[in-house]
Amino acid sequence: MGSVVGRASKEGRVAKEQNPTPKMPALKLIYFDGKGRAEPLRWILAAGNVPFEQETFGFDAWPARKPNTPYGSVPILMVDGQPLCQTLAIARYAGTLGGLVSKDALKNALGDEAADTMAEVVSKFFDTVFEKDAEKKASTEKSLFEEYLPKVLNVWESRMSGAFLADDKAMWQDVFVGHWLSRLEEARPDLLAKFPKLAGQKNKVLALDGIKKYLASPPQYSLPL
Amino acid sequence: MGSVVGRASKEGRVAKEQNPTPKMPALKLIYFDGKGRAEPLRWILAAGNVPFEQETFGFDAWPARKPNTPYGSVPILMVDGQPLCQTLAIARYAGTLGGLVSKDALKNALGDEAADTMAEVVSKFFDTVFEKDAEKKASTEKSLFEEYLPKVLNVWESRMSGAFLADDKAMWQDVFVGHWLSRLEEARPDLLAKFPKLAGQKNKVLALDGIKKYLASPPQYSLPL
Repeated sequence: MGSVVGRASKEGRVAKEQNPTPKMPALKLIYFDGKGRAEPLRWILAAGNVPFEQETFGFDAWPARKPNTPYGSVPILMVDGQPLCQTLAIARYAGTLGGLVSKDALKNALGDEAADTMAEVVSKFFDTVFEKDAEKKASTEKSLFEEYLPKVLNVWESRMSGAFLADDKAMWQDVFVGHWLSRLEEARPDLLAKFPKLAGQKNKVLALDGIKKYLASPPQYSLPL
Repeated sequence: MGSVVGRASKEGRVAKEQNPTPKMPALKLIYFDGKGRAEPLRWILAAGNVPFEQETFGFDAWPARKPNTPYGSVPILMVDGQPLCQTLAIARYAGTLGGLVSKDALKNALGDEAADTMAEVVSKFFDTVFEKDAEKKASTEKSLFEEYLPKVLNVWESRMSGAFLADDKAMWQDVFVGHWLSRLEEARPDLLAKFPKLAGQKNKVLALDGIKKYLASPPQYSLPL
């Protein structure tokens, strides 16, 4: 608890010392000791070269912690000691700090649309992961991977005219979506077989300097998801 | 279909003619002929004096329309003929067009946190509204109105230091939250009895020029919600 964990934090501190940015707040990301819903936030912070620390904990510590969180949920980003909650609110704030936003309101909005939709996909994905009834699990997996997700991917693929979802430069929503595409590919290796532009988008996210550095030696977590 | 409905649209067109804003895109909001998830978007557009048209339809038309929407859902905002989906992405874009954003990234983020949380509250609320099993309905209502929602309202109340959620001026998230607080008060008139700052926030939203004008003669819809 309260410790600095992971390579991202260490690099972050180095980056802060080398390039002092007086307006950059002190950030601490609080989450389970796993990837889960926090990993895309770590990617966004890494992609924007934004220094941050982490506070992680195991499932066993959650019942005692939960009542002390604003809404009974994590991740939480402490910003100069003040809690900021909700994954997408944190993601957008982290992306803003790292300059991963467009000057064009509509491009940001189309990115928001993609991120909101991916968050829905991820909720459905976790529902399938935690479903214990085998028959129900098979049917929700089928509905997600063979119906809903291909429809979503098709919308994004057919809209893309540049290297990324809504622009020729990466926005934080590209990092968010690219992260989840690569996680979902672990479950379905052929996920992007019919979506060459999205496969390119994901690869370009993985090739961003900050992400490459982060993934060269990613933090190791005790929890499986 | 395709017609201009509601006072907002008519005023919008007048406003556009009087104050030509060449960069303002042509907006058309597509939704059921009811308040539902579109009404806070109409409020945000009205509060920012952003001209827009509407296209509404009844439940009977939905099965034929649904497959032609990007993700199988509405609302959709047509922006110069291009669809923008996801309620919160539309809300943020509408708010940006109307200048209802802060220059401070953290204030925007705290607003986003509140809007995301209110969207979760609203999903739970609609679950209770559409629940047919009386016992389950009573238990989900109790869980929402006596446990989760008071906790959420308490977080917002205890954080507020100005007239609005995260600032002294209204952001689009204030309009979004204020709209839903006033809707939820219809179900629970004592909702804000213990939250004087939030009651003030909601009243200040209702008193914004654009909202007052909109509510003086609001569009009438055929659907109850």
